[in-house]
Amino acid sequence: MQRILNNPDDIVDEMLKGFVKVHRDIVAVTDNPRVLKRVDMPADHVGVVTGGGSGHKPAFIGYIGKNLCDAVAVGEICTSPSAIAFLDAFRAADQGKGVACLYGNYSGDNMNVKMAVKMAAKEGIEVRTVVANDDAASAPKDQAGKRRGVAGEVLMWKAGGAKAAQGASLNEVIVAAQKAIDNTRSIGIGLTPCTLPAVGHPNFEIKPETMEVGIGHHGEPGIEICPLEKAEGIAHRMTGIVLPDYPLAAGDEVVVLVSGLGATPVMELYVLYDEIEKIISKKGISVYRSYVGNYFTSLEMMGATLTVMKLDGELKELMDMPCYSVGLKQA
Amino acid sequence: MQRILNNPDDIVDEMLKGFVKVHRDIVAVTDNPRVLKRVDMPADHVGVVTGGGSGHKPAFIGYIGKNLCDAVAVGEICTSPSAIAFLDAFRAADQGKGVACLYGNYSGDNMNVKMAVKMAAKEGIEVRTVVANDDAASAPKDQAGKRRGVAGEVLMWKAGGAKAAQGASLNEVIVAAQKAIDNTRSIGIGLTPCTLPAVGHPNFEIKPETMEVGIGHHGEPGIEICPLEKAEGIAHRMTGIVLPDYPLAAGDEVVVLVSGLGATPVMELYVLYDEIEKIISKKGISVYRSYVGNYFTSLEMMGATLTVMKLDGELKELMDMPCYSVGLKQA
Repeated sequence: MQRILNNPDDIVDEMLKGFVKVHRDIVAVTDNPRVLKRVDMPADHVGVVTGGGSGHKPAFIGYIGKNLCDAVAVGEICTSPSAIAFLDAFRAADQGKGVACLYGNYSGDNMNVKMAVKMAAKEGIEVRTVVANDDAASAPKDQAGKRRGVAGEVLMWKAGGAKAAQGASLNEVIVAAQKAIDNTRSIGIGLTPCTLPAVGHPNFEIKPETMEVGIGHHGEPGIEICPLEKAEGIAHRMTGIVLPDYPLAAGDEVVVLVSGLGATPVMELYVLYDEIEKIISKKGISVYRSYVGNYFTSLEMMGATLTVMKLDGELKELMDMPCYSVGLKQA
Repeated sequence: MQRILNNPDDIVDEMLKGFVKVHRDIVAVTDNPRVLKRVDMPADHVGVVTGGGSGHKPAFIGYIGKNLCDAVAVGEICTSPSAIAFLDAFRAADQGKGVACLYGNYSGDNMNVKMAVKMAAKEGIEVRTVVANDDAASAPKDQAGKRRGVAGEVLMWKAGGAKAAQGASLNEVIVAAQKAIDNTRSIGIGLTPCTLPAVGHPNFEIKPETMEVGIGHHGEPGIEICPLEKAEGIAHRMTGIVLPDYPLAAGDEVVVLVSGLGATPVMELYVLYDEIEKIISKKGISVYRSYVGNYFTSLEMMGATLTVMKLDGELKELMDMPCYSVGLKQA
C-alpha cells in the first residue's frame, strides 16, 4: 500500500490537525475534536450543518465556509460521524434561528442524525433535515428514497448555504436545499478500486479494461460492469442515465458538476466534460455553470461522477452567490 | 490503462476545450490554440507569462487569473510548448510594459523560451525571464543552475503576478519573482509511477513498499530509493533536505506548500503537513502561510512535494495579495 500514513487508525485525527493548521482563516476547532466550524460565523442566520465519513476530500469539511456550511461532523473513513458529533455540530451552528442539516442518504448517517435531532430538540435547538439522494444508479426512480447522496450534495450545500446567508428562515432554507437535491441527478463510473488505510488492500475489485457504471463512493455495487470505453462513450453512458431520470429536456438550464473520484488525472475530467457538454448542448439543454475537479472523492479510486441540476430563477441566484471554502471558492 | 480518454494523441486539445468551457469566467482562448489568456486582462501592467508541458494540473493553465499569470503556453504531455506558443503568449500578455516569463528549468522550455524572447524582441516586445530551479534534489547546491523547477513555481507566479498587479515595472517584477524562487526550495517523494496516455504503461518504476526521494515530475531519477516510511519519517526526510539547503534557521518566517503528485488522497497530504509543521515549528521557524492540495501534479503519480519559501516583508505582502485562478483562489 503506497500511502502516506502513520498509524492508519489515527489518520482522521491527524488529517484534522493538519487541516485546521492550514485553513485557520476558514475553519476553527470546537470542543468536540470531530466537529469543525466556520471561523467567521455570522451571528444571525440559520445554521447549515453536514457531516459524513472521511476519505471524500474536499467533502465534507472542505465545504465549511462563507455561504456554505457552518459546521461539519466528521466520521472515521467511510463511516458515519457519531450522533454526538452531529449534535455538537448543531450546537456549533445554531444561532437561535434553527439548523438545517443537509446530508447524504446512508443508513449510519440517517440513524445518527435522527438521534442527534432528538437530542437537539430537548435543548431547544430546532433542526430540520434534507437527505441527499442524487445517485440515480443506486435504486430505481420509484424507490428514490433508497438512493444514495453523492456529489450532488455539493450543490445542495451551495443552495442551502446561500439561502441561509440571504437571511432566509429555517423553512426557506430547507425548501431551497430540498429543491436543489430534488432537481439533481448523479452517476458515478469506477475505473479502479480504493484501499482503506486500515485494511491495506482494496475491499472490492474493478478488473483492468472494465469499468463499473453506477458504483458508489464506498464501492457499493453499480448497475453494470462493462468494457472500459473511450471518454465519448463514458459521457454517453453517464448522460444516458442522468438526463432521462429527471427528466431533462430542451430549453432547460442546468449546472453540471464533474468530479474525479480521487486518482483520475484532472485533465481527463476536462476531456470527459467536453464530451458531456457536447451531448447536453445537442439536446438543447443549456449549461449555465459548470464545475470540474475533485469535489467529492473516494480516496484513490479512479473514475468520475457526473451531476446535473436543473435550474430555476431561485437556484440560479443561489448558485451565482459567491462562496469561500477549501473545496469551493467562487467570486 | 484505466483512464478516461479518447485518442490519447488528442488529450491536450480536448482537455483545453473542456477547460475553456468550464472556466470562461477566468480564461479565454487566443488565435493560437495552445495559448490561453486571462479573460479580464487589465490594460496597464507588466504581462506575466508561463508555460510548460501538460499533465501537471492545475499547472500551468490553472494559474491564469487575477494577480497571477496573464497568458500561458501549453505543451503536449510532459513536453515543452513550442517557441511559437511562448511567443504568442508574450503577444497576448504584452501591454507595452514588457513581459515577465516565469518558467521552470527544463531543457526544452529553456530552448523554446530563448527563441521566443528573440522573436518577441524583433517585434518590440521586451521579455525578461526568471527560471525556476527550486528542486533541491535535482543537482548539488553549487550547481543550482542545473536544478529543475517544481511546485515552487506556484509561489514564483504568485509573487510575480502580485508585483505586476501593483503596477511595478518589468525590472521590479523580475526582481521579485527571482527573489521568490531564490528563497524557495522543494523536494518530491514518489510512491508510484505515472503512465503517459500515449504510451499506455509507466515509463519508470517505483517498487511497492519503497519510495523514491527527489524524484522529478516526469520520473527523473531521485537521489535515493528507500523503504516506504511513515508520514513522520517522510516529513523528516523532506525537511532534512529542504531546510538546510537554503539554509533556514530559527526566527525565519516561511510559506509551506505541500502538493500531491496526483493520486495520493488529499487527506494524507494533511497528515504529512501536520508532521512537517511540527518539525519546522520545533526549529523555531514560523509558518506564515501554508497551502496543501494538488497544486502541481504528475498525472496519476502517488507521492508529494514539499516547498518552503523564506519570506521577507515584500514577499509577505505579495503572498497575502488576493488572487483568483482555477488552481489558486485567495481572498
